[in-house]
Order: sequence, then structure tokens, then C-alpha cells
Amino acid sequence: MQVVAVTIKDIARLSGVSITTVSRVLNNRPDVSAESRRKVEAVIASTNYIPNNSARELVRTDSTNIGLVVRGVSNPFYIDIIQAIESAVTDAGFTMVLQQIGSDKDEIAHGAIMQREKRLRGLIFLGGRFDYTPEDVTSITVPFVCCSYTNPYGTLLEGNYSSVSIADEDTAYEAVRYLIEKGHQRIAALITATNDRSISQLRYEGYVKALRDHGLESGGVICTESYDIRGAYEAMAAALQDKNSGDFTALFAISDNMAIGAMRALRDGGRRVPEDCSIIAIDGLELSAYIEPPLTTLCQPMEQMGRESVRQLLALMNGEGEHMQHILPTELREGRSVEKI
Amino acid sequence: MQVVAVTIKDIARLSGVSITTVSRVLNNRPDVSAESRRKVEAVIASTNYIPNNSARELVRTDSTNIGLVVRGVSNPFYIDIIQAIESAVTDAGFTMVLQQIGSDKDEIAHGAIMQREKRLRGLIFLGGRFDYTPEDVTSITVPFVCCSYTNPYGTLLEGNYSSVSIADEDTAYEAVRYLIEKGHQRIAALITATNDRSISQLRYEGYVKALRDHGLESGGVICTESYDIRGAYEAMAAALQDKNSGDFTALFAISDNMAIGAMRALRDGGRRVPEDCSIIAIDGLELSAYIEPPLTTLCQPMEQMGRESVRQLLALMNGEGEHMQHILPTELREGRSVEKI
Repeated sequence: MQVVAVTIKDIARLSGVSITTVSRVLNNRPDVSAESRRKVEAVIASTNYIPNNSARELVRTDSTNIGLVVRGVSNPFYIDIIQAIESAVTDAGFTMVLQQIGSDKDEIAHGAIMQREKRLRGLIFLGGRFDYTPEDVTSITVPFVCCSYTNPYGTLLEGNYSSVSIADEDTAYEAVRYLIEKGHQRIAALITATNDRSISQLRYEGYVKALRDHGLESGGVICTESYDIRGAYEAMAAALQDKNSGDFTALFAISDNMAIGAMRALRDGGRRVPEDCSIIAIDGLELSAYIEPPLTTLCQPMEQMGRESVRQLLALMNGEGEHMQHILPTELREGRSVEKI
Repeated sequence: MQVVAVTIKDIARLSGVSITTVSRVLNNRPDVSAESRRKVEAVIASTNYIPNNSARELVRTDSTNIGLVVRGVSNPFYIDIIQAIESAVTDAGFTMVLQQIGSDKDEIAHGAIMQREKRLRGLIFLGGRFDYTPEDVTSITVPFVCCSYTNPYGTLLEGNYSSVSIADEDTAYEAVRYLIEKGHQRIAALITATNDRSISQLRYEGYVKALRDHGLESGGVICTESYDIRGAYEAMAAALQDKNSGDFTALFAISDNMAIGAMRALRDGGRRVPEDCSIIAIDGLELSAYIEPPLTTLCQPMEQMGRESVRQLLALMNGEGEHMQHILPTELREGRSVEKI
């Protein structure tokens, strides 16, 4: 990688912010407005700026660092994946450097800075946008793998990037078909948004397709503000207050976490699970097999997903691997949250 | 730090194993017997052996690495702490290097190797033994902080090490007293062991003390094989089969995770929670407030614990901090898993 003489002054000028602000962004300080941060990150991503001290280190030594950018705070679904990635990275003699960013942050801009500052040899993105363009990813100049997601809304060519994920739309389709086979006709969906070009949109599309293929109308679409339990709880509680949106016998939730929040809201609203409302989800957290009632869910192979991402990254780093979209299978784990009607 | 000319041959000779075995241990390969690994790690810890490539890097460059050794696989209680640590480490301009080890592994031996290989400036141990001796920790030559645990069974002097934790025995005492105040007289404990010099023993001692202070006998001590949900489920299921051990009206579980496994086993055994058996735990996972019934638990301040550990480590690294045992308060979160009788 070439060290280009872009200075922090240039970055400030190009972003239209002060040098202090650039420095704050580089050091990940919280005291920067979201807008300034976006501007600075965009400029950094579009140049080959390398912070001084890292440039110095880069010249002096080979790094063994592999970066893991985890987007989405505290998602319990990620724990087993992170553990599998760490173990595979360490086994291969590399060092895993982890950074977590909020789900409102841009992982590519963050990865581009991290690549330079931490002298990364490769990068794994865990959770991320589904709509990268080729231009978006030019700022990443080391091999990278998208873990748990792929690029259906973007314009990356299949032969130009690597990903390891499940087939989200198909898995959602399968979940909804399971409810239909149990006799449900009024099926609601609990998602974050219908058009956010994320895992939510993708799973929503699987839901819509399953209903359409079986000649059913939607039983309601409930959108949360976030992927967490509390957000799911609040969205479901609000939906139950609304006379027009409570008329469903089953719910498809896009994650176990959100299903658990929704189950609590259903109970607090006087509805029994599964007697008054069946629930199915996607993820397969260990814990959700132990709650009351045990959750019926389509399990993602977390550990395999982590290991496979590292295997693919190491192959790319060695110049051996072909880019590929590795799609892993899910497995239905039946609990007692779905009842035949 | 001085680079000592100990070679891999020396390590092999001193450990009484082959060079190949030493190399496997250094590279964290799984194909080594537990005994060989222990021997090699002990020798490495007692010398200043530095692997060749790391020694080279050490001479060339200053590192910004702070190591985080997480002991105990997939403990959901750790997620928020890890996130707080990562964020504080990154904000301070350092790089968090994470490694996870099983709860049967020795974090000090692992940390000593990691310190050398990853050129660490400091170390945080998340989860670990409670019985370090001064000799144990000599192999760690950078500042370190024990996060979530302290040294009650060891012989470290308070002024000689740093830790951030809750008061485990007092918190367990408080949990059991809460059950007693609700009228319970036959209270069982769900722990991993009574004498393993871990968090389990410490919380068990709080349980015993609370019973004694209130003139009560134990309602049974149920020991699991591990800290995970499945282990708790199996131990509780076995206890319910045993005619001599099922005679309790309330259960104190040493973790939320274990409480969730136990609740499932109680239900599968035909006992309702809380009508037939009340449950209280320690940890305060967000999720356990949403399950049915919501779990009554003493919440640890996870985020504060993580941030405080980093603050203390950075102070030590700057030569500013005094060693201290920082004890953080817990907070009772009442769910509906405890009933007055």
C-alpha cells in the first residue's frame, strides 16, 4: 500500500470542518456531531489518508492484525459468531482487533479508518449494509468478508466480493409457510422497516412472497424503531392498543430477540402465546429454547458462519481464494410457540 | 522489557515435551493434551520467552495494544462489559485485542503469552480465578486489571493489584435475605460448586451466611457441571427426580443464565414458577426482564464495570493510579419470579 502525503489539514479543508474536529473523529471521540463525522469519514474514505503514527508503524513492521467490525450494539446473536471468528483468527496465528459500532454508523468508513490505523491485513464485517456499490468499497484496500449478510440491494458483482450468510428471504419464506401449514391465515410481521435495504427488508420480502404464493393478505406489519428487545416490546404494545392492527393469529418476527420482546407485550396485553397468538422467528439463540413457551425458530449456524468467514478471508489474503457468496442452511427448531388452528 | 535469549528449544527441554508440542501450544492449536499445555505454559510463564517474530516487532515499534482475555465461553453477561471496554479502549486511542478462553483454561498463563506475542501495553482479565498468589502473577509484567472478580482466596495484597467487581458474598446474602423476607424457609441454591474458589463458592458463602443469620437450614444445594443454561437445566432436572432434594419453596441461582435453565426444568417437572417455587438470581441480563415470568435479580452495573476497568488500567499505564479494589453496587430488579408465602 502506498503512503500518500494527505495531511490532517487537507482532510479538514476537504470536509469543511476544523482540524480539531478531524482529530476527534480519528480518535473516535463522542463529542462530534453526526454530520461532521459523516463528512470527515467520507473524505478519509475517498483519500488514502493514513494517520502519522500508523504510517510510521506501517513502514517499520508487518502486522498480524485482522479487524472485526461489529455493527449493531449488544446483539446476542453475534456472541457465538464473534467467538468462532476469534478462535479461528488466533489459531491461524493472527490477532483479532475488534471494534463495535452502532447500527446507525457506516461500517465501510469505519473499516477504512481502522484498516489504516490498525494496519490490518484483512477485515471481517459482522452485520452491515446490503447496498454497497463498487465505489463504496474502494476505500477498503485489504481483503474483506461480509459475515451474516450479502449485497442484494447493491451493485457489487458476485465475483468481486465475498460473503457468508443464510438465504434471508428464503428463510423468512419458510418461517411464514410453516405458520400457514399450521392453519394460520392472518399473519403479522414484526420488522424494523419494509424498505431500509437491510436484513429487515429482505426478510419482509420473504414474508410478503409467502403470503402471496398462498393467496393471503397481510395480517399487519409492525415496525420497531430498533432491533432490540425493548423496541420490539414497545412496537407490539402500541400495535395492540390500535384497534385496526391487532387482528392476527400468528406473528413472524425477524429475530429471536424481537420475538421475546413481542411475547412479553402480547402477555401484558392479555394475549396468551401460543393459544391466542403463535410466534415464529429467525436466529436460534440457545436461550430461546429454554424460555416459556420455548420459541419456534429457524436457527442460523453461528459457529460455522464465523469459521467460514475466517477461512474465506485467509484464502483471499493468501491470494488463493475466489470471491464467493457462501450461503449456509438454517434449521427449524420447534418449540411450543406455534399452535395449529 | 528485556528481551531474553530463551529459545523454543529451551522451553521444550524445561517442559519435558517436544519442540513441536511447544510450537502447537504457542499457536493455540487444539491438538495438544491438557497436561502438555499446562507444562509448557508454566515454563513460558516462568521465563521471559518471547516468540521470534514478536520480539522483532517489539524492537521496531511501539504498540498500542491492550489485551482482553475473556474466560468463560459465551456468557451473555459479558457482552455489555466487552462493549464498554472496547469503546473506552478505542476512545483512549488504544487497540483492543480480544482472546476468549474456556473456563477450564488458565488466564494468567494465557495472558503471559499474549502479552509477549501481541506486545501488549496492558491487560484486562474478564472472569478469572479468585486465588492468585504473588508468584502466579509475576509472569504478567504490564499493568493489568481483574474485571468482574477479585482475590478473596488468594494471597495478593490489596495494594498490589487492581480489580473492579461487585461484592459477591454480600450480593448473594441480599438475594437470600429477600427470599426470607418473602416468607421462604426452605431455600435451595443452584451453584457450580461449594469449594471451587470461584464466584460460585463466594456466592454460596453469602447464601450460607444469610441462612445462618436467620436460623435456617439449607433447602438443598444443587451443583451444575458448568455455568451454562443446559448445565443448569440438567442439574435441576436431576434434583427434581431425587426424592431427597426437591423439598424447597424458593431457589437462589448464582446467575440469570442458570436461573433460566432451572426455570425450564422446574416447569418440565410440573412445578410452576413462582406459585410452586420462587426464584431469584444475580446478574441482571436485559432479556431476563422480558421472559415469563420476568426474573427477579440483582443487577450488576455491566457498562460501568467495563468503563471503570479501562479507566483504572490507563491510570496504571500512565503511572498515575494507585492499586485498588473497586467494588460497585448492585441493584435489585423485581420481576414476578418471587412470591410471598
